Order: sequence, then C-alpha cells, then structure tokens
Amino acid sequence: MMPELNILMTTSSTLSDWMKQSQAHIEAALTDFLPSPQQTPTHLHEAMRYAVLDGGKRVRPLLVYAAGQLFDADYAELTRAACALEMIHAYSLVHDDMPCMDDDALRRGKPTVHVKFGEATALLVGDALQAQAFLILAQGKTAPARQLEMLRILAHSSGSLGMCGGQAIDLASVGCNLSRDQLEQMHQLKTGALLRASVLLGALCGQELNEIDQAALHRYSHSIGLAFQVVDDILDATSDSASLGKTAGKDAANNKPTYVSILGLAASQTLAENLRIEAHNALHSFTATMQNSRTQRLSQLADFIVQRSA
Amino acid sequence: MMPELNILMTTSSTLSDWMKQSQAHIEAALTDFLPSPQQTPTHLHEAMRYAVLDGGKRVRPLLVYAAGQLFDADYAELTRAACALEMIHAYSLVHDDMPCMDDDALRRGKPTVHVKFGEATALLVGDALQAQAFLILAQGKTAPARQLEMLRILAHSSGSLGMCGGQAIDLASVGCNLSRDQLEQMHQLKTGALLRASVLLGALCGQELNEIDQAALHRYSHSIGLAFQVVDDILDATSDSASLGKTAGKDAANNKPTYVSILGLAASQTLAENLRIEAHNALHSFTATMQNSRTQRLSQLADFIVQRSA
Repeated sequence: MMPELNILMTTSSTLSDWMKQSQAHIEAALTDFLPSPQQTPTHLHEAMRYAVLDGGKRVRPLLVYAAGQLFDADYAELTRAACALEMIHAYSLVHDDMPCMDDDALRRGKPTVHVKFGEATALLVGDALQAQAFLILAQGKTAPARQLEMLRILAHSSGSLGMCGGQAIDLASVGCNLSRDQLEQMHQLKTGALLRASVLLGALCGQELNEIDQAALHRYSHSIGLAFQVVDDILDATSDSASLGKTAGKDAANNKPTYVSILGLAASQTLAENLRIEAHNALHSFTATMQNSRTQRLSQLADFIVQRSA
Repeated sequence: MMPELNILMTTSSTLSDWMKQSQAHIEAALTDFLPSPQQTPTHLHEAMRYAVLDGGKRVRPLLVYAAGQLFDADYAELTRAACALEMIHAYSLVHDDMPCMDDDALRRGKPTVHVKFGEATALLVGDALQAQAFLILAQGKTAPARQLEMLRILAHSSGSLGMCGGQAIDLASVGCNLSRDQLEQMHQLKTGALLRASVLLGALCGQELNEIDQAALHRYSHSIGLAFQVVDDILDATSDSASLGKTAGKDAANNKPTYVSILGLAASQTLAENLRIEAHNALHSFTATMQNSRTQRLSQLADFIVQRSA
C-alpha cells in the first residue's frame, strides 16, 4: 500500500516521520519498478531485488523529494526519478563490493550480492540495474525535452566523468598521498555527482530551471555532497560495523586516503559543520522569493547528512 | 576525416565498399563520442577507448545504417544511435571476458581489457561505457518523444529482459541439456535483442513506425539475430582462434550447449540458410511499396551474417 500523498508532501510532519513515510513509498515503488522475481531469468531478478530492496537510508530519493518540494513537482514523477537514482546507487554498491574492487562481505547488514549469488551474477545484477534505471527514467511523463535532460544528467553523473570516474580515481589512490584538493575532486565525482543529480532531477520534475536556481541548487548539492563523504570518513573511523551495517575501519585497513587521515578528526568535524552551514546559505536564494516551507526538507536533510550516526 | 555522406548512402557501391566506408565512419564517430584520453581519469578513458576502438565488424552499426536507408533517416542521428549500440556491445564483451564470467584472454585479436588494465578497471570500463551509451543517445536531435522511445528500446534490449537476461540464462545453462527452444530463447535475449534494437533504432531515426513496418522489421531482425548466433556456433566449432580473433572451440571446452551440439553441424548450416531466406522474405513487405534499393543493404547484411567466415 502506498501512503497518502498529502502526508508525504506536507510540511507539518517531523523530519523523522517524513523520512519514514518517504522511505516506505520508495520501497513500494522500487518493488514495482524492478522486474518480477517470477519472470525469466528468475535467478537474476531475485538477485536484483536483493540488491535494491529492504536496505539503505535512501538519501538520494529523499533529496529528490526534497528538491521536488521546492518547485511543487509531480509526486509520481519524483518517485520515478528517485527509483532510477537508487538503482544506479545500488548497482554501484554491488560492483564496488566485488572481490576485484573492495572485496566486501557485508552491506546494509546483509551478505553482499556476490557472496550470496556468486560473482558472475553480481556482475550481471549491476549491469542490469543500470539499464533498468535508464529504462524507468525514459518512461517518465515529464515533457519529453525535459525528460531527455534528466536522462543526460543521470548518464553524465553516473559515467566516467561522474561516479565511475570517481571510482577509478579512488582505485588509483590506494596507498597514495592525495592532497585535500585531490581528495575533494575524487569524492565530488564518486559520491557527489549522483547526490547533485538527485537534487537536479527532483527540481526538473517541477520545472525548467533558470540560471539563478541552477546555481543555488549546485551550491547546495556541492556542499551536502562533500559533507556526506566527510561524515562517511568520520563514521568509518569512529563507528563499529554493527552500527554502520557495513565493514567499519576499512579505509584505514585498505590504506585509503580520507578526510580523517588528511585533516585529522577534529578538523574533519569542523569541515562537516561548515559545509552544513554553507548548504543552508545556498537555500537563502530561494527563501528570498518563496515561502520558507518550500526549502524545509532540503534544509533538514543538510542537517541530517551531517548529524547522522550511520 | 569523415568520408563523404553521399558515398555512404549510395546504393551503387558493393557491399564490401559500403561496409568499409561505414566502418571507417563509425570508427571516427566512436573516437569523438568517447571521452578524451587526456581527460581525468585518464587511465579509465584510455581503457574505455581500448575496449571500443579499432576492432570488430561493427555489425550493429551496419544494421542501423541499413535500416536507416529504408526510411531515409538523418545520417548523423544514425551514427549516434549506432555508436550507442556499439558501446553497449563493447561493454558486454569487456564484462563477459572477465575471470568471473568466461575468463577469456583474447578478444578481437588483442589481450582482453582485464588482462591489459586489471579486473577492477575492466569492471569500471563496462559500467562507464553503458552510461556513455545512454548519454550520447539522450543527446540526439530526433524529435524528443521519438528519442525517448529509442532510449527505452536501448535500455530494454540491454537489460534483464534482453542482453543481461540472456547472459544470466547462459550462465545457468553451462553443463545443462537445453532444448532447442530454450537455446533459442537464450540467444534471442543474449544477442538477438541488441541486433533487433539496431534495426529498430535505425528505422526510428527516419520516422515513426506503423504496425506493418514494425512487424516486418521484427521478422527480419528475429531471423538475422538467430542466424547470427547459429553461425557463431558453427564458426566456434569449425574455425581456429587466429581466424576468429577470439578463442575458438571454447563452447565445447566450457561444456556450453550450442546449435552444433544440439542439432549437429549439417542441420545448423541448413537452419542458418533457412533463416537467411526468412529475412529476405520479411523485406518483401517493404519492396511491395518502395523501390528495391531501399532494402538493399538489409538484404545484403542478411547474406553477410550467414556467409561470413569470422
């Protein structure tokens, strides 16, 4: 059952309630947008569902909904874009966890896809999820020219000049002394690109963006994208695997450069807080001309991304 | 340098000349559509270019051009669709060759991507090529609603109900006794889906398709898609690696069911010939209302696919 839309777009619920309801809605939509496990090849479809369903904070979908609230976007189209982004994110996790990459056995508190289904299936799960993401976004009902723009943003942010490119730099950086600028560049591609795409796609479900809006959204998403990674590095260094739902301490174990290894823990915490403030400042561009309530969820998500504990 | 367009769309050149000129044009376009090797991450971009450029018969691009000729399609848009399809095909080869799949060291006469660049990079090369394929197709200049239809066809034919799904069935079939129907279903997904997509995308670059045209194109591409695989199986069983540019005899070595193993060599050759005739028959639907010259290249490609020696 889908929750009522008026609950989801309301501004009166707490962030925690809004997140829970949005996450439940995304879970239901992902269940629908993934091929049925009864359909041939059943083993692949079962594995695709295992990789995507029942897990994660759904940060990218939440950003899509929050940005959609700014421009009064259609809820069904936001959900579609959110699912496409989440499938891209899920495929990247499946491939990252494989033995030839991070070789990780635990993800979202469960055995990783290659551990449960085998490496060959994990490879195909990732490939098929990427295609599925583009398929569902290409089925969207937004004006065709704008729908194409959304597809270009998704493709660009997930390809060699976005997420995959960041992974490649990450691979090459193991055991290297990166400068802070190089570390930032890597993360802006590896995680930041898809987080920025989430904000943009959410906004584009509502309307064409003028240059001022685009610049403000870029500034917001640049800040939260980087903050997300700084906090990930802090949590990796300070939490245990049970709290994280994935292997903790693996950056240090893998000799990977992180914000904590380059700046130290205290300076990383200060950086995350400054990025949170910067994200709020970027939203002032909208509150000058709109009701504050329109930016409410983006504002709260900036806080959540920095203050989360997992 | 791009060859002159009037040479490429002419009907007076031999198939061999037309193929050479089309292949040269595709090579130049792929070179332009791939990220520059000077751009960061350079190692990934170099590996993507290695995977795509300077190799292969470019059967999918040739089918795009041939189908485009039917409907007088724009040459630049055909080239774009052809490059997107070839990038999807190239990514699938990179991932197929990896140790967790077919574990192959030779492709198109060169070391495979994971042998030359390492497994992690090969994984990312495939992922990034898939995104690049959708990016360039989403940049197309065909009417936006039709461009979206082309993107849906590409995504569907390469995902879990197309190419990836066929791979998954292939994986599960090793050492199994497949029926002829099961073998056909596997190949219609694994290779057939993308070949059918090539014909459809080429036609859609020209115009919206009515149901009669769609049915005829489906019948043609169904036949050549299956013929392609039957001939692949025949060549795998009868050729050496040097002629093929890839490891010969690997189906038998891997205990994979093939047309040759199920039907025998002679019956497989008869089947391929019957499919060639069936493809020609499908084209009669067009020659009833159009000049014969419009179907010339599709007709010749059906012959080429069955009569090729590599």
